[in-house]
Amino acid sequence: MRAESAPPIVITAGEPAGIGPDLCIQLVQRAHAEPPLVIADPDLLLRRAALLGLPLNIRPYRAGEHAPSAAGEMVVLALEAGGSLEPGRPDPANAAYLLEGLRRAAEGCMRGEFAALVTGPLHKGVINEAGIPFSGHTEYLAELAGVERVVMMLATDGLRVALLTTHLPLREVADKLTAERLEQVITILEHDLRTRFGIEQPRIKVCGLNPHAGEDGHLGREELEIMQPALERLRARGLKLDGPLPADTLFTPHGLRGADAVLAMYHDQGLPVLKHLGFGQAVNVTLGLPFIRTSVDHGTALELAGTGRAEGGSLAYAIDTARRMARASTES
Amino acid sequence: MRAESAPPIVITAGEPAGIGPDLCIQLVQRAHAEPPLVIADPDLLLRRAALLGLPLNIRPYRAGEHAPSAAGEMVVLALEAGGSLEPGRPDPANAAYLLEGLRRAAEGCMRGEFAALVTGPLHKGVINEAGIPFSGHTEYLAELAGVERVVMMLATDGLRVALLTTHLPLREVADKLTAERLEQVITILEHDLRTRFGIEQPRIKVCGLNPHAGEDGHLGREELEIMQPALERLRARGLKLDGPLPADTLFTPHGLRGADAVLAMYHDQGLPVLKHLGFGQAVNVTLGLPFIRTSVDHGTALELAGTGRAEGGSLAYAIDTARRMARASTES
Repeated sequence: MRAESAPPIVITAGEPAGIGPDLCIQLVQRAHAEPPLVIADPDLLLRRAALLGLPLNIRPYRAGEHAPSAAGEMVVLALEAGGSLEPGRPDPANAAYLLEGLRRAAEGCMRGEFAALVTGPLHKGVINEAGIPFSGHTEYLAELAGVERVVMMLATDGLRVALLTTHLPLREVADKLTAERLEQVITILEHDLRTRFGIEQPRIKVCGLNPHAGEDGHLGREELEIMQPALERLRARGLKLDGPLPADTLFTPHGLRGADAVLAMYHDQGLPVLKHLGFGQAVNVTLGLPFIRTSVDHGTALELAGTGRAEGGSLAYAIDTARRMARASTES
Repeated sequence: MRAESAPPIVITAGEPAGIGPDLCIQLVQRAHAEPPLVIADPDLLLRRAALLGLPLNIRPYRAGEHAPSAAGEMVVLALEAGGSLEPGRPDPANAAYLLEGLRRAAEGCMRGEFAALVTGPLHKGVINEAGIPFSGHTEYLAELAGVERVVMMLATDGLRVALLTTHLPLREVADKLTAERLEQVITILEHDLRTRFGIEQPRIKVCGLNPHAGEDGHLGREELEIMQPALERLRARGLKLDGPLPADTLFTPHGLRGADAVLAMYHDQGLPVLKHLGFGQAVNVTLGLPFIRTSVDHGTALELAGTGRAEGGSLAYAIDTARRMARASTES
């Protein structure tokens, strides 16, 4: 397969009132040898480009066509939004458009029309206000793909952190740590590090749930009763796992050495060091899907939409990561 | 008061089987203009120095005497250990000696005989095996001083992180977050930043308990129901507080800007970034005591005792921090 005929990366521009459209417009201000494809309302893009004072030529998407793009040219798969296109004011009338864009993108990825999906930021609440139950991109894509369990991983140069649990109150975390979940998540993480990142024998360092990884049971017994037996079963299958380890020493430069990924038990145990090291150059990757999906690590930033002050670092990094993952997947 | 007549800093050498004695011996291999005073069994020190192949002259402590020390000379307040002095093999027969050393040090600090206390590492379990209930240095010192609440803070260059809760299982954290505790801890933290660190109007950034600081109640309600009202009451008293803030964005370089200290709600939320930035150059400070106490940020490292491979960075940093705190306290 020649490089120029590789399927394109598809980007969903996300919430029309947020900075997603702005970032896509900024992205195409330079020429692209392998242009990404943007799913969005062309009217939204043209209006936003005018607000930003940036040139924009829209080239309608045609499946199988892979010509380079010139500066200011964007390949667009057009959907009609149906609601307000104003920056800063999310409109529930756009909910169906947003979900349809995600569905089209995911289906295209699953049948090989697209190489990977990069999602712009959404506003969950606005979709819920439209009467549609929606708990986030990740869950929606898992449902579309018919998979039971996906894994959220954040990555920046030199560090990958996956999470056992993600967006739930701290008091609910401990009860979500079960041997079944731990084994599912580590199995997905190890599998995708091999098949999506081209790491032959990934080494995963696993944080304990409790401070000091429970200190031999003095500070909690989940490490002894749940984690150690589960990790032993996985090691018996050949996985290279260290842990459960105390999070504060695991996250030192010395502790991180040799780890292809860290598995944290919950959000605020894993993400502070990653975001400290990688802010603006971090990407959110969903593992366990039958396709590649990355995402920006920021929100809709409604107050910046249309101002020209949105920073495109995370979108560029998300696209770059998706492209590298697509190449590693093809090679393996 | 002339500098050379300032009271000495007192060091408890800690567990005889660990690296505490080694670090004290390494410390006095250079001359000191203001020598610290070490509380330990002289026999232990001499044997350990012989094992390490280092010279050691013991000068018995005399209250009020403040002469500089030569290289290889250590000022020692002698106590007899009573148990084994072998490296690597903790002996419960030393428990009474260890607690007596701490008691003598704390009482000396409280009556102004010593400027500050720096503690070497202990092994809680060994003291418990001797039949003495002991849950750690910090709690023991609080009891000796008759204070109800102390605050653990870790510090490295450019970052201070205090903890609302410390060594307890993760599943117990949420219930320990009460308005009373939050107000007590912030009051102590703000007070000691002023009086011990010489910061006139300290600015404290406070982490939420839940991921995304609860996201307006969608990921937990403690921020809305407990934290925000408590922080408002403290602000009404003039304290400069930001929060509750999402921990992952607070700990980015941008988020930390302007903070004199961060208050984390629990151990593994606050310490990974601090230890990532400061490993080997981090110090544990106990706030809320009627005297200054700092500590190394490492354990007894039994396997390194007597080998000469123990690294003295954290002890030096703990002494240095204690000295700077003592000066800031005298000046205010």
